[in-house]
Amino acid sequence: MALQRGFTIWFTGLSGAGKTTLSNIVHHRLQSEGVTNVEVLDGDVVRTHLSKGLGFTREDRDTNIRRIGWVAQLLTKNNVPNIVAAISPYRNVRNEVRKMIEHVGGPGSFIEVFADCSVDICEKRDVKGLYAKARSGEIKQFTGVNDPYEPPHNPEVRVDTSQCTPEAGADMIIDHIRSKGFVKL
Amino acid sequence: MALQRGFTIWFTGLSGAGKTTLSNIVHHRLQSEGVTNVEVLDGDVVRTHLSKGLGFTREDRDTNIRRIGWVAQLLTKNNVPNIVAAISPYRNVRNEVRKMIEHVGGPGSFIEVFADCSVDICEKRDVKGLYAKARSGEIKQFTGVNDPYEPPHNPEVRVDTSQCTPEAGADMIIDHIRSKGFVKL
Repeated sequence: MALQRGFTIWFTGLSGAGKTTLSNIVHHRLQSEGVTNVEVLDGDVVRTHLSKGLGFTREDRDTNIRRIGWVAQLLTKNNVPNIVAAISPYRNVRNEVRKMIEHVGGPGSFIEVFADCSVDICEKRDVKGLYAKARSGEIKQFTGVNDPYEPPHNPEVRVDTSQCTPEAGADMIIDHIRSKGFVKL
Repeated sequence: MALQRGFTIWFTGLSGAGKTTLSNIVHHRLQSEGVTNVEVLDGDVVRTHLSKGLGFTREDRDTNIRRIGWVAQLLTKNNVPNIVAAISPYRNVRNEVRKMIEHVGGPGSFIEVFADCSVDICEKRDVKGLYAKARSGEIKQFTGVNDPYEPPHNPEVRVDTSQCTPEAGADMIIDHIRSKGFVKL
């Protein structure tokens, strides 16, 4: 597989929906097929580098997403494929980032992937123990519990992670970027 | 000229010392010789994207520089040559960024350029009218007037912008990156 031009795979979804798992599989899949310079911008990691001090109000969440988006467009513009995995709960700012990235990377270069999974199931998984903390009130403004999540209307790829395996989800994403000509066999 | 590997040209110096002027000339010189994918991160521009809300205390300035540095290392790591032009008054955080960039880009990939010029001369130029505002008290914490500037001890390139033309300064910088093998004739 060879890279043809830069793109951003932008995961959105609840905590525990599988964004990081999917992004890691897609990352390794791309690497093992020869696209070696993929940059993963994980929400938690990026927050410590770009957004220390920001909280979880709508305004602060939007600012955080705009910053990640700005870095993603720098990479896409320079043909560095990148994967962002952040809850990014608000539709408007996701669409703002979409425009910013397609402006430099061309149509289709923003690939929104909806890691779709109900709160119930995410809460049952509760890998990081965060839902428990949200229910007990220890964490306020937790997306899906006491803070809104706005699902995308027309994501490029929707992965129902309650139904399909991470590997099958990654296949759908790789198929998409291949079919759109971003990578070539 | 062809790019061999990524690097960061990091300008430091007082407001009005010539950082932006030099960075623009170096950028165009590189472009015209075939290194077309150079990314310029100008301090003022980056502040609006990454550091809105931060002020000019030492802590806030350091946070701003760390964020720019983090983006610069992402680019260097992915072989995207980049130029940062920000006052970056504190030596410690500049050295922190140096380590972060050399960690991903290898020895020498952080090229510190000291735009060296006395406060007196910068103040006489006062292109943006900022020194006048600092003297009148309209701007507080202005580097060189009522906020410290720590010159680098061993910059890779020192350009005395009170003595040499911007073009001659740019020559010194291009000569450096060529002699270190980052670009090739």
